[in-house]
Amino acid sequence: MEYFNVFSGFGEVPGVPVGAVFKDRASLVEHRVHINTQWGIIGTRDRGAESVVVSGGYEDDKDYGDLIIYTGHGGRDQDTGKQVDHQSFDARGNAALVTSHVTGVPVRVIRGADAKRKNSHAPSYGYRYDGLFQVESFWQGPGQSGFRVCCYRLVKVSESTAGWDVVTDVASLPSGNVEPGRTRVTRSQIRRARALSLAVKELHDYRCQICDARLTIKGLGYAQGAHIRPVGQPHSGTDTPDNLLCLCPNCHVLFDNGEIVVNDDLTIVSSQPNRGLLRTSHDHVINLDHLRYHRDLFR
Amino acid sequence: MEYFNVFSGFGEVPGVPVGAVFKDRASLVEHRVHINTQWGIIGTRDRGAESVVVSGGYEDDKDYGDLIIYTGHGGRDQDTGKQVDHQSFDARGNAALVTSHVTGVPVRVIRGADAKRKNSHAPSYGYRYDGLFQVESFWQGPGQSGFRVCCYRLVKVSESTAGWDVVTDVASLPSGNVEPGRTRVTRSQIRRARALSLAVKELHDYRCQICDARLTIKGLGYAQGAHIRPVGQPHSGTDTPDNLLCLCPNCHVLFDNGEIVVNDDLTIVSSQPNRGLLRTSHDHVINLDHLRYHRDLFR
Repeated sequence: MEYFNVFSGFGEVPGVPVGAVFKDRASLVEHRVHINTQWGIIGTRDRGAESVVVSGGYEDDKDYGDLIIYTGHGGRDQDTGKQVDHQSFDARGNAALVTSHVTGVPVRVIRGADAKRKNSHAPSYGYRYDGLFQVESFWQGPGQSGFRVCCYRLVKVSESTAGWDVVTDVASLPSGNVEPGRTRVTRSQIRRARALSLAVKELHDYRCQICDARLTIKGLGYAQGAHIRPVGQPHSGTDTPDNLLCLCPNCHVLFDNGEIVVNDDLTIVSSQPNRGLLRTSHDHVINLDHLRYHRDLFR
Repeated sequence: MEYFNVFSGFGEVPGVPVGAVFKDRASLVEHRVHINTQWGIIGTRDRGAESVVVSGGYEDDKDYGDLIIYTGHGGRDQDTGKQVDHQSFDARGNAALVTSHVTGVPVRVIRGADAKRKNSHAPSYGYRYDGLFQVESFWQGPGQSGFRVCCYRLVKVSESTAGWDVVTDVASLPSGNVEPGRTRVTRSQIRRARALSLAVKELHDYRCQICDARLTIKGLGYAQGAHIRPVGQPHSGTDTPDNLLCLCPNCHVLFDNGEIVVNDDLTIVSSQPNRGLLRTSHDHVINLDHLRYHRDLFR
């Protein structure tokens, strides 16, 4: 298959404002907003995704407006749309959305009319371009059907980010910008108990519980507080000591993306060289249910 | 000296709204907003800073409203307030603001009236509580006088963050929050050419130019684009390839905080074990002026 023939470009489409409504999928293609009438996700693993269509048809999608829990493709019955098998991150579109998460390049979101009127954020007619969303995280979980589906947390980007052209010819780097401008960005964020995170880091003397690294800044320890079961929709992890780890930034990224998981006996499972056991403390006990929840997102 | 006697608490002071004006420094002390009539910075290296007073008197402070370039204490003539010597990050208040940067706990900012009317953001009378600011970065640079002064980039926090009580008794962790709420945060951010950052990372195959680490997420390389000379006020670094490095998150934190600097011959100077040379590429040439600028911020 030649996917590169179906690449239109990242970011906003010139002349298409947020809120523009199109009568059908063919019209989306014609205006280069979503360039395939069948696929829900336009993109490839190499480049990432450029656009997704949120339709009323998928039982596991959840639409909160500026936050969408979007599910991938595959495993659905062609006639009924029901989930009849597991989904895989190897599938083209599912892999593309993982790449979008890693690169940080946002995707265009188009919402389709919801015939069943269950989604109050869907348009009453046709397909509406609803702006750019960042793929904040991905995981796998059981859908309503019981089969494992690929999930993505899409969060609306307020910033106007026209011109996300991704360069593939690395022999000539883009020239960049000698005087980069500023922009105002608004987003919703979890109100964390920073005192708690500080106390956990202090208790571990800012040493990573996974790799034992201890970064310092002017002699002060530096680490990050990482939630095991993610806080926020749809995981609703708690901001409590038994759900927090003291990690270095590298292990934090790997843990949040499932490249590191921890077994019930606290052995660390990682693509990196053997890590041994998660270092814990009598004064800071980890809830094994949270470790299990985290493992299950990425198994 | 017993600094702990002069600790009042982090965050907003109950009953003191943003914009509240106080007639003099004694009144600030009385209302627990800034609990010392002489010091510009309340805080210690161990705890961090809880409040700072921005006065018109300091020649190197720069006030942009929601962004303040604040200079530390020390090296000033007691009579004239002129800078007559270098400042040091070892000084109590200067060290406290570094700690605030590392912990991420914001400081109360109080602006004093500017008799010379040079600062349009200063109140016309007395002292005004202007809210919480995050210490986004610190560095040292030559002041107007030619002496090196400690500088801090203070950025206003829109979020209400009452109750930043920092726990010091690690034997009993705070209980945290089982259902953390959400809050909306607005901030100004530099509009970066993400295509540029992606191209630089791609060119280095997502391998850290400092430590050679290569993180992966589902087989995709993960790295961060790090500016050498910082973008934004007052450094105004360019968002161009010759000012960008491909770094792992750990080296990014260390580089941004001056724990890693790079010499003209590309040898890496670090508190970490010997790192050798910065790995570069024919297709990605680093501007030595930017490396010098960065070194000079932290020498």
